[in-house]
Amino acid sequence: MSEKLFSQATGMFIAETHTDAVTWHFSVDKFLVEGRTQFQQYQIVDMPTFGKTLFLDYKIQSSLLDEYVYHESMVQPAMITHPNPKKVLVCGGGEGATLWQALQHSTVESCDMVDLDEELIDMVKVHMKEWHHDCFDDPRATLVHQDARKWVEDHAGHGYDVILSDLPGPIEGGPALYLYTKEYFQHVAKALSDDGVFVLQSGAANETYPYCYACVHETLESLKEEFPYVRGYYGLVTTFQMPWGFIIASKKHDPLELTSAEIEARLTARGVQNRYCTPRFMPSMFVLPEFLLRDIKKYGRILTDAEPFIWDA
Amino acid sequence: MSEKLFSQATGMFIAETHTDAVTWHFSVDKFLVEGRTQFQQYQIVDMPTFGKTLFLDYKIQSSLLDEYVYHESMVQPAMITHPNPKKVLVCGGGEGATLWQALQHSTVESCDMVDLDEELIDMVKVHMKEWHHDCFDDPRATLVHQDARKWVEDHAGHGYDVILSDLPGPIEGGPALYLYTKEYFQHVAKALSDDGVFVLQSGAANETYPYCYACVHETLESLKEEFPYVRGYYGLVTTFQMPWGFIIASKKHDPLELTSAEIEARLTARGVQNRYCTPRFMPSMFVLPEFLLRDIKKYGRILTDAEPFIWDA
Amino acid sequence: MSEKLFSQATGMFIAETHTDAVTWHFSVDKFLVEGRTQFQQYQIVDMPTFGKTLFLDYKIQSSLLDEYVYHESMVQPAMITHPNPKKVLVCGGGEGATLWQALQHSTVESCDMVDLDEELIDMVKVHMKEWHHDCFDDPRATLVHQDARKWVEDHAGHGYDVILSDLPGPIEGGPALYLYTKEYFQHVAKALSDDGVFVLQSGAANETYPYCYACVHETLESLKEEFPYVRGYYGLVTTFQMPWGFIIASKKHDPLELTSAEIEARLTARGVQNRYCTPRFMPSMFVLPEFLLRDIKKYGRILTDAEPFIWDA
Amino acid sequence: MSEKLFSQATGMFIAETHTDAVTWHFSVDKFLVEGRTQFQQYQIVDMPTFGKTLFLDYKIQSSLLDEYVYHESMVQPAMITHPNPKKVLVCGGGEGATLWQALQHSTVESCDMVDLDEELIDMVKVHMKEWHHDCFDDPRATLVHQDARKWVEDHAGHGYDVILSDLPGPIEGGPALYLYTKEYFQHVAKALSDDGVFVLQSGAANETYPYCYACVHETLESLKEEFPYVRGYYGLVTTFQMPWGFIIASKKHDPLELTSAEIEARLTARGVQNRYCTPRFMPSMFVLPEFLLRDIKKYGRILTDAEPFIWDA
Repeated sequence: MSEKLFSQATGMFIAETHTDAVTWHFSVDKFLVEGRTQFQQYQIVDMPTFGKTLFLDYKIQSSLLDEYVYHESMVQPAMITHPNPKKVLVCGGGEGATLWQALQHSTVESCDMVDLDEELIDMVKVHMKEWHHDCFDDPRATLVHQDARKWVEDHAGHGYDVILSDLPGPIEGGPALYLYTKEYFQHVAKALSDDGVFVLQSGAANETYPYCYACVHETLESLKEEFPYVRGYYGLVTTFQMPWGFIIASKKHDPLELTSAEIEARLTARGVQNRYCTPRFMPSMFVLPEFLLRDIKKYGRILTDAEPFIWDA
Repeated sequence: MSEKLFSQATGMFIAETHTDAVTWHFSVDKFLVEGRTQFQQYQIVDMPTFGKTLFLDYKIQSSLLDEYVYHESMVQPAMITHPNPKKVLVCGGGEGATLWQALQHSTVESCDMVDLDEELIDMVKVHMKEWHHDCFDDPRATLVHQDARKWVEDHAGHGYDVILSDLPGPIEGGPALYLYTKEYFQHVAKALSDDGVFVLQSGAANETYPYCYACVHETLESLKEEFPYVRGYYGLVTTFQMPWGFIIASKKHDPLELTSAEIEARLTARGVQNRYCTPRFMPSMFVLPEFLLRDIKKYGRILTDAEPFIWDA
Repeated sequence: MSEKLFSQATGMFIAETHTDAVTWHFSVDKFLVEGRTQFQQYQIVDMPTFGKTLFLDYKIQSSLLDEYVYHESMVQPAMITHPNPKKVLVCGGGEGATLWQALQHSTVESCDMVDLDEELIDMVKVHMKEWHHDCFDDPRATLVHQDARKWVEDHAGHGYDVILSDLPGPIEGGPALYLYTKEYFQHVAKALSDDGVFVLQSGAANETYPYCYACVHETLESLKEEFPYVRGYYGLVTTFQMPWGFIIASKKHDPLELTSAEIEARLTARGVQNRYCTPRFMPSMFVLPEFLLRDIKKYGRILTDAEPFIWDA
Repeated sequence: MSEKLFSQATGMFIAETHTDAVTWHFSVDKFLVEGRTQFQQYQIVDMPTFGKTLFLDYKIQSSLLDEYVYHESMVQPAMITHPNPKKVLVCGGGEGATLWQALQHSTVESCDMVDLDEELIDMVKVHMKEWHHDCFDDPRATLVHQDARKWVEDHAGHGYDVILSDLPGPIEGGPALYLYTKEYFQHVAKALSDDGVFVLQSGAANETYPYCYACVHETLESLKEEFPYVRGYYGLVTTFQMPWGFIIASKKHDPLELTSAEIEARLTARGVQNRYCTPRFMPSMFVLPEFLLRDIKKYGRILTDAEPFIWDA
């Protein structure tokens, strides 16, 4: 065997498995922080190429290389879709970057962030300033440590303009299992204003594990009365080794009707400067690849509290 | 530590490293074929989720899960861009699927395939029928085992309508090092007809290793006289763990001017049924993400025979 | 980080986990044979340094580098301990090397080998001649494919001089679970002659997983009437990444009473040339390290059919 | 494929390669300390089974599971061999456990420890008390941060009774490259008393990488005038995944002449309680396996400053 082809590992690695097909061994240059909260284990490390990177329960969350891709994809399409977002809710969003993205819009008067894991956020405040830029101190921001579902249920009629769901996937026994169900989405509709926009990260948008995305999409589609416009889209998150899926469910405003010119006008008016969700690029994010459309039909089912989706990739 | 979080590897794996940040350990369910030609080592294995998969020099090439995504992305945009492709050349394309994709177009009268590695193709003919569907036997196909550059140089004035470059990356000492240079592209221009279209796979289109893509793009851009239209695009290749980049360099026909309706008309007329490059989806493939545009400007340089690109990811 | 320190894996590997502390990634140079019998999966590969190597269920079994160390350790001390071994039984011993070692002793008149897995032995006959040297054809050898316990139970009073137990560990649901229990050992005693010698491979002899060895030792110790002499020893099996444990249970002959001179005399008389169990070295194999003596006391319990040992390393 | 057989990695690992045959992936439960001194990188982690463990340059050094096996093997045979060791020198010995082992002997009046890496020792003092038990504070101990070779050269005629060489292997460009050569060993002889004993850790004692051990052994054997007694031995270091080799070079006292009774008498008189190098077990450590004797002959060569051994496993 040619020695040029063959090499062996020396160093430190964090291994994450995605389906039974592949395990990613991420190289750790330097170890920064490790701990365990009531809900999860966390590690922050310096990686070659990726830079500072957060892992939760040994799953890569975001790196300085392209956290902006994930977080703009998470936040900007929904915020832009709403013509005048004043009251915003972030569910989850531990790194604080989702909150930061929302607060970039000058229209925002208040942004509540509800994240269960206080210990994690305390750590994030100290060690992940590159993500949140201390925006927890923004007078418009309110941070609450509570179950997001309870918060949403308690805020029926509150009139949020935009609700951003940046939660972990529906893992068995995990805190987000019932934050991807029909019943929950109905509560979301009640907490939104009459022209409110809801968006949630919905899992992998590739051909190895489209099952979660398909089911969440199908579930929102079944709520035509609450959400006449259900629009899937995806972001090219290099750190995740795959495109990542999001879905907007909207009461009145259809993101597909936004032209690049209108996107640009809104961003300019609100003082937002995107690096990924630009006026030129954003419309293409909503053009889902055929395989995802096929998989939505093939694997989609309506998720309920009785039969939620259980992630096992 | 929770045992639920932590698990160790048992089984057989093929490890491929992509930049210093991550190594992918691909699971091998069953070993099918292994060998070494004069030019490379090959392995065909059965993988969970991915199915039958080809590795060359321990680098994943394509799997049954989504070889169609790669090969449609490789072939269809260029074929559709040309209004009437009759004479086609495939450079490389070992699995035979690039040839197969080209031959789907009923306009094609002849398709030459020039691949250096005869031993590999002989193996492919026996073991990878799901890729090539025995299209080597199509009377329009001619298979030649020769250096692609020499073939192209020898065919100046031949008037190919489409040249499809499905070659390995420019590895140091590898056979494709001088198939990504300005001088070579000038020979390509001479081998094309007056309205010919050239397309080449150009490497990763993500934020970890955009360097090859940036340089190939810049090099083709520098050939305005030969190729007035240089259009980058990408395909979502799940098997590659990242979006993959391609570039069309065209003399007269601009892929960006094709509407979905026109794409559909051409595909229908030629009897082609795409699963990935559909009329609805194809235009979005040409909307490159901002980071790639930035990286093209930042890292692009003109590649020459004297200073070719050397892939080291 | 210094690039000299840090390197990533490229190539093919078989991963085997030993306790929750370490996973060994064995490098595969070339893939030779793979298959699955009714009982197990097997792979023969060429490894750097180790040479041709057999894996069963992704666990390394033996390599050409030092299969002689394992198989001499398995066979020679018991054979030498008996002054005149004529009738020998091998339980298990799939590679055929245990049989070969026993047949080296010119005193042997018959050697029965009972191995459940006929498909595996058929493969071994073709692909592992370096291990068995075609000794299955020796007229003194009889190969039977049957459950070893049943064979031993059926051969009470048969008068074997030496019984060599070269079986897989007691895995849950595996075929050898009840071949490491007190009841079985009592049947072994009945199948032996009055001065018969029994030996079995008994698992790891290191500090990470001494549990099986401790329990087998304790179980044999509890059979003072059947086996007055219970003598643990170990072999330095490089391929296993650890010392490996064996235990002799003997009715009349005590291996500890053998001097190097007597060992040499017996080997010479029988025409045996050992490379590992030499007269000089063999006595030291019986000097167990203190940690193993401590662990035998600490973790040993009597294994029964009702409560067998279940290997979970 | 049976799902029971096949599993993938999730978690954190430190990978160490030993020859081209195998890479060990050590599981990290918890990350404790990381840093880089002028000379090396260090990591202390909690491992399952192994407990607290030190890595230097991603190579496992010692774990709480069995650091006593390594350090008793390193120190006790030489200390016991000398009838009355008063003046002792430790070269290297970063963890402080070698010093601690030497100081257990009540005969010792002074023990100098010369270790180049002050930063490492400062870290060890804080984080590895289980190894050194604060013995740096023993009034008999003197810690010097200096090149060991220079110290030894400067102490010709000093009359050390025992010199313990617990140094890293002779890596290219590393600080210990010239601490395994004939010239250095001649300086060692001069620094010893007339009946002084020298011992050094000498690398792997298995069949995959016996080359260093063979050469060091041959080099000391060539110094018959200085060291009439050269005695190789090994310790069963579970943490190292292999037996580890040591060599005693002695001017007057031959360790092979010590009976278990004499060993016991000396240990008792000096108040030493060994857990591995017990009177019963110690003599067996000097019985090298045949393969090591063969490899010494086959691969041994005399190491000189001009042609030192360069470790590349």
